Amino acid sequence: MIKIVVDAFGGDNAPNEVVSGVVSAINSNEKLHIILTGKEEVLMEVLSGYKYNDSQISIIDAREVISNNESATEAIRQKKDSSLVKALDCAKEDDEVVGIISAGSTGAVLTGAFMKLGRMKGVLRPALCPIIPTAQGTITSICDCGANVDCKPEYLHQFAIMGNAYLKVLGVKNPRVALLNVGTEDHKGDVRSKETFELLKNSSSKINFVGNMEARDLLSGDYDLVVTDGFAGNVLLKSTEGAIKNLLTIMKNEIKASFFSKIGALFMKKTFKNIKKGFDYSNHGGAVLLGCKKLVVKSHGSSTAKNFLTCINQVVTMAEGKLVENISKSLEKVEMSNE
Amino acid sequence: MIKIVVDAFGGDNAPNEVVSGVVSAINSNEKLHIILTGKEEVLMEVLSGYKYNDSQISIIDAREVISNNESATEAIRQKKDSSLVKALDCAKEDDEVVGIISAGSTGAVLTGAFMKLGRMKGVLRPALCPIIPTAQGTITSICDCGANVDCKPEYLHQFAIMGNAYLKVLGVKNPRVALLNVGTEDHKGDVRSKETFELLKNSSSKINFVGNMEARDLLSGDYDLVVTDGFAGNVLLKSTEGAIKNLLTIMKNEIKASFFSKIGALFMKKTFKNIKKGFDYSNHGGAVLLGCKKLVVKSHGSSTAKNFLTCINQVVTMAEGKLVENISKSLEKVEMSNE
Repeated sequence: MIKIVVDAFGGDNAPNEVVSGVVSAINSNEKLHIILTGKEEVLMEVLSGYKYNDSQISIIDAREVISNNESATEAIRQKKDSSLVKALDCAKEDDEVVGIISAGSTGAVLTGAFMKLGRMKGVLRPALCPIIPTAQGTITSICDCGANVDCKPEYLHQFAIMGNAYLKVLGVKNPRVALLNVGTEDHKGDVRSKETFELLKNSSSKINFVGNMEARDLLSGDYDLVVTDGFAGNVLLKSTEGAIKNLLTIMKNEIKASFFSKIGALFMKKTFKNIKKGFDYSNHGGAVLLGCKKLVVKSHGSSTAKNFLTCINQVVTMAEGKLVENISKSLEKVEMSNE
Repeated sequence: MIKIVVDAFGGDNAPNEVVSGVVSAINSNEKLHIILTGKEEVLMEVLSGYKYNDSQISIIDAREVISNNESATEAIRQKKDSSLVKALDCAKEDDEVVGIISAGSTGAVLTGAFMKLGRMKGVLRPALCPIIPTAQGTITSICDCGANVDCKPEYLHQFAIMGNAYLKVLGVKNPRVALLNVGTEDHKGDVRSKETFELLKNSSSKINFVGNMEARDLLSGDYDLVVTDGFAGNVLLKSTEGAIKNLLTIMKNEIKASFFSKIGALFMKKTFKNIKKGFDYSNHGGAVLLGCKKLVVKSHGSSTAKNFLTCINQVVTMAEGKLVENISKSLEKVEMSNE
């Protein structure tokens, strides 16, 4: 059995889309047991609309919801009866639970995971690691993409080791690990980048470090893991999202503006669909917080049933691939070789 | 008269495109005098193909060229007879020269400008400031986009003041100045961002500080100047370039893959052209190095005649707008109010 707890009241489409995704997940995998946290009577009501094996779902009642516009730390401390805090408590206390999924406030999910679940032994800082589709149809990842804005080179060294273990579990063979920098030459960058480069180059971990990567190559498909501090990683991820969004908007406007373009757009409908689909991050699951004692997946705030299903399968893959154990082994090896 | 020195052997298309751009510039502005640096006999040969008033062009012979793959500092020190070093020496020694344009190695241009021209009084660090077209058809700028990878909050405060003066000279009224950060809330970010936020919020300079900006909003058109350290600024600029480039590549491939898309693409040819043109940075001139004693414009390595013409007009605008004087005044005011 694989037991996962899902914050049923996190995200814009909760609880309906959450429940719908959870039901599809258990109906396609009889080994799954999902614990939902949230208003019990509401969840019962929504569940009554579905056919499923009710031994695979249990509910923990939670009366409160944490919103995006409240202080994460205070919310976790004070809203003890919220769907997120209840989910975190369950993940902490129930040894059988392998991980937690929430589409709630990123800040609250991260802070809550730090406070409630805690770091794995030896982990300096847990890091947030999203999956991004590339122009080659492959995936790439950024570690850290925003959990730690003030970083030391030793943190980034661990981000590389944890991200590497994650990508291996996802099936990427010998991931090409790069360091985000302002140029590709070995000695480029700020003080932190230069120190991190040396750590990665001389790392006793068996990561396949391929050197520095410029931000323009994120989507090239030439790199599997981009190691960076959470500030630059956040800029890298969000500027990429923003550029694509804005370019598509400009296209729409240009198309609207011209009669011939409108005709053209009709012919290209499928093409545009493919492109949008290709760049839809949510198809690739949520961002994983690496380095916590249990698996933590932050799903997009606007997640649909399909996205929740993907996230559940993502947790299953990580659990079956023994990600937490692998990370702890990899870090121990480096620890020992440093002593 | 406005005297500008142009590195005629910098960039991929030198010297032909440089000369062609210079000739169109002087033929459209009789106040201009351009000094070209590079192999005299070659430049004479190329110039012989054009009609122009030869009192508006002079040549300084330079036998060497600095390439992209040599160490900037060494190149500037050792290649004293290079087109770039000769241009910098000319800008330094000739009081009438208002600025220099080069499409050569960015590293060499920046290092050379620091070493040869030097900083304006009171400037802690000169900053590189490109112009970027937005989804609204307006322009926005990033200061710094890569000249300084290790920054202190005081540097960023000056970047805001210098960038603000630059945009005003370009005709942007009361520029909306934002700080690049991981979130829009006032207290977001790393230690440096938090300190910089306070400096900008309480700045005695009259900048219109509108708060934090997330990377995804660079192209939104809601901000005129994005203040950041050179590392994050470089990531912001390059990831935006890369995302657009990759998205257009994916489209091309998708279009090639489908018969109907091919037809559609024919109808949309003009639309695609407009989009490409809209996002062509070079239409908006080169990146300006703010804070040097003379105007310094780094033109794209692949600059065409049209781009060089744009850069020359850009220098004219900055010279007529008294940018150097304005920056120095703005910085002095802040200096005094700090004492």
